[in-house]
Amino acid sequence: MIKVIVAGFMGSMGQKTVEMIKQTDDFQLVAGLGPHAQEIDKSEYHLADDVQVFDQLNKVETDADVWVDFTLPNSAFENVKFAIEHGIHPVVGTSGMSDAHLTELTQLAAEKHVGGLIAPNFGLSAVLLMKFAQEAAKYFPDAEVIEMHHEDKLDAPSGTAISTAKMIAEAREQNPSASKTEATIDGARGGDVEGVPVHSVRLPGYVAHEQVLFGGSGEALTIRQDSFDRSSFMSGVKIAIPAVIKETSLMIGLENIL
Amino acid sequence: MIKVIVAGFMGSMGQKTVEMIKQTDDFQLVAGLGPHAQEIDKSEYHLADDVQVFDQLNKVETDADVWVDFTLPNSAFENVKFAIEHGIHPVVGTSGMSDAHLTELTQLAAEKHVGGLIAPNFGLSAVLLMKFAQEAAKYFPDAEVIEMHHEDKLDAPSGTAISTAKMIAEAREQNPSASKTEATIDGARGGDVEGVPVHSVRLPGYVAHEQVLFGGSGEALTIRQDSFDRSSFMSGVKIAIPAVIKETSLMIGLENIL
Amino acid sequence: MIKVIVAGFMGSMGQKTVEMIKQTDDFQLVAGLGPHAQEIDKSEYHLADDVQVFDQLNKVETDADVWVDFTLPNSAFENVKFAIEHGIHPVVGTSGMSDAHLTELTQLAAEKHVGGLIAPNFGLSAVLLMKFAQEAAKYFPDAEVIEMHHEDKLDAPSGTAISTAKMIAEAREQNPSASKTEATIDGARGGDVEGVPVHSVRLPGYVAHEQVLFGGSGEALTIRQDSFDRSSFMSGVKIAIPAVIKETSLMIGLENIL
Amino acid sequence: MIKVIVAGFMGSMGQKTVEMIKQTDDFQLVAGLGPHAQEIDKSEYHLADDVQVFDQLNKVETDADVWVDFTLPNSAFENVKFAIEHGIHPVVGTSGMSDAHLTELTQLAAEKHVGGLIAPNFGLSAVLLMKFAQEAAKYFPDAEVIEMHHEDKLDAPSGTAISTAKMIAEAREQNPSASKTEATIDGARGGDVEGVPVHSVRLPGYVAHEQVLFGGSGEALTIRQDSFDRSSFMSGVKIAIPAVIKETSLMIGLENIL
Repeated sequence: MIKVIVAGFMGSMGQKTVEMIKQTDDFQLVAGLGPHAQEIDKSEYHLADDVQVFDQLNKVETDADVWVDFTLPNSAFENVKFAIEHGIHPVVGTSGMSDAHLTELTQLAAEKHVGGLIAPNFGLSAVLLMKFAQEAAKYFPDAEVIEMHHEDKLDAPSGTAISTAKMIAEAREQNPSASKTEATIDGARGGDVEGVPVHSVRLPGYVAHEQVLFGGSGEALTIRQDSFDRSSFMSGVKIAIPAVIKETSLMIGLENIL
Repeated sequence: MIKVIVAGFMGSMGQKTVEMIKQTDDFQLVAGLGPHAQEIDKSEYHLADDVQVFDQLNKVETDADVWVDFTLPNSAFENVKFAIEHGIHPVVGTSGMSDAHLTELTQLAAEKHVGGLIAPNFGLSAVLLMKFAQEAAKYFPDAEVIEMHHEDKLDAPSGTAISTAKMIAEAREQNPSASKTEATIDGARGGDVEGVPVHSVRLPGYVAHEQVLFGGSGEALTIRQDSFDRSSFMSGVKIAIPAVIKETSLMIGLENIL
Repeated sequence: MIKVIVAGFMGSMGQKTVEMIKQTDDFQLVAGLGPHAQEIDKSEYHLADDVQVFDQLNKVETDADVWVDFTLPNSAFENVKFAIEHGIHPVVGTSGMSDAHLTELTQLAAEKHVGGLIAPNFGLSAVLLMKFAQEAAKYFPDAEVIEMHHEDKLDAPSGTAISTAKMIAEAREQNPSASKTEATIDGARGGDVEGVPVHSVRLPGYVAHEQVLFGGSGEALTIRQDSFDRSSFMSGVKIAIPAVIKETSLMIGLENIL
Repeated sequence: MIKVIVAGFMGSMGQKTVEMIKQTDDFQLVAGLGPHAQEIDKSEYHLADDVQVFDQLNKVETDADVWVDFTLPNSAFENVKFAIEHGIHPVVGTSGMSDAHLTELTQLAAEKHVGGLIAPNFGLSAVLLMKFAQEAAKYFPDAEVIEMHHEDKLDAPSGTAISTAKMIAEAREQNPSASKTEATIDGARGGDVEGVPVHSVRLPGYVAHEQVLFGGSGEALTIRQDSFDRSSFMSGVKIAIPAVIKETSLMIGLENIL
């Protein structure tokens, strides 16, 4: 039985984590951390009576094995430091932590031999897409990325698409074909990420989707993932919880434990 | 039985036309026009002995009903003028004729009441895609175009993709959603064609493919066409030959007879 | 301003209709019909104070122009009869009404010159897919249907896929190619619907998706629709409301007013 | 420089191999084996003058490092035996060799410490698809296979699709979801290969294409490969030639050296 504490248990992802833990036989929710946590009605947040709640990091006292964290970057940094120092394995779903903070936490985890994971994306399909794209790039140096999101997404390309393109660029063992194409309309050939064109579609109805297209002599390979809703993130968290216990360092990216 | 003359019968598309006519019960090949045509061995170009061949336009004497033309723009202009003047219905697969020439031929055909067709693309799947995209745009003002071609294609976007985007822009009855997206990498949002983003993929292996993506509240509609080889053009020519006989004006674009 | 009454306003689709009417300038919600409707707190169901509510059909007194109905087949039959008799134009989202009932309502509407619509599917993308498939089948007699739904869907193929296949079979002007394929595993070639193979995929994560694949010499045409959530139905209802007022007969299927 | 002999050099795949070797700096064609090979005009088969040709296996004398074989199963068996016995590394593109023959060759290669490869499919995209599908099945036990081929293909499902389904079934670490779906039309749910539904589409225009669809809570992963023409096979042969030299056993399947 793996004992888990959830930081940010009152938020949307925190609550999804609470529910996932309940439905998993091998996991036990032992504590939650959140602002004003001591004033709440536990049942409203689907906590059993014996789950401890803390409203400040410095009050936390727990025998949890794993620390799941869905808080903002600054809190997450302090939380994870605390977790590592107390031998609790962090599983962190926060994106946007600074490089300095990531380095500090990685060093601390190495020192203390505490395995953990910080992942910007816990969606299994997205992470497998990146992994497979990286591997295919060895054989197919010619690749392009197309991502599709709802029209309210503020940035383009998506962070995942940029990461995918970078991974492809790094994994290539040959130069891509020298294309003779000239764009007669600016932008038609997409955005350039280290030599990999990235195309961003923004349309109502779409949720979050990514495709990688590879082409070679007489053939093509396409890898596509569709995220229909954020419930998909929980499959990744569920895989990460038992995995970090067996590790002795802090990893960045879910692909490292797949 | 429809009698056909093929101008440019020695070229690749001309030869495909010769073969298609042979395989179609209702069509009869009566003549061919091509440079040095009188010096050739007819059987090498799959012509029966009774097919007349001419090496110059001013030598042509024929009772053909339909004039199929796969020559270069300048020859095609002279050829089509000749055909219309002689009451032969032109079916022309040449792209790149000037607007002035198109206007002149259209007027001449109207005067003479001779139906005909000039089409830059005889691929049925491409033409249907444009037709459906135009219709869908009435209900889904939010649309993007993605086209994929082999890496040797010189231009981007493809002519068909630009035409498709323009048709969508014209057919829209509502404004598309005001997107909040900002591109952090130039070109990520594609090339803009009258408010319709167009994305061009160039990869080895691919032949000629086009997709139109429509998005609306909670749903998406995608129309895709794949041209695997140019044999696909013959389906369009086959449909055009009997169709132009029933018309009394010169039409531009295969969609006008579908 | 078009005045609307919603039968079944307390259900999920009824509530979506209430919301859509509120957000549309030209529509006004004037009444709702539903069991126990007189005992409810109107604001809980997002009704303004001046919206009339009725708990039984025979109590309804309204000057509505359009009657939107999302009730079960038997209620829907009685409701629509009532609506037509009172000159109110029905827009009905109920599937499963018997042929006898459909015939009776169609005759009544014709007699009274009241336009209306009964549609099993108000999703615009699904209806356009069927419309385009029907048109493409004229030129591409070779077609197959693939539909993908979540693993909880009880039947296979989906009703929409069966309808699409039937429409294709009917629209074909040539016989499909005589395939030489023999299935070495039963079912590999899909279910046969009037000569159109239909393939049903059932996987968790998927919502409701349908593809039609057409193939011809050297080319392919694919039409695909994705329903991500039922909010998509409201676009169809919104189009139907003003359309039925201009009609004088009862139509079956949203495609008839597109 | 790797010296290569091509058995079946006069056939279509043999000739593609000859051409590929010419275009690869590190490879040298030293010999060819084929019926009546000594009566031919070498230049017609694109062989340089110094390439040796043999018309019978027992006449072959060569210092080749690698033996590429595109002959029929029975010849291929004798050829590969000969090659292994002479310390030449076989790369075999023949499918349909019997299990008894495969076992015998594998044992012989192990004894002689000669690395080699027998692969039914040298298309990189198809082999990577199978590899990725196998890996994804660990995380997504719910999967279905759809393959699309031209209407002249005699069997359904394709051999590659059956292999893919079997690999998925074997790689799964959890049971797939218990689907509640009942097919109302026979075959709609596809052919069953060890619990993985396989759907075969047969349409003119299509060449050879395969998709694997995975579904999980709130997300989907799709891997697709398209073979547009058989030139794609040469990429795999090109990778295999230097790879087998470094091996000491006979492997079945290109995936083993990727």
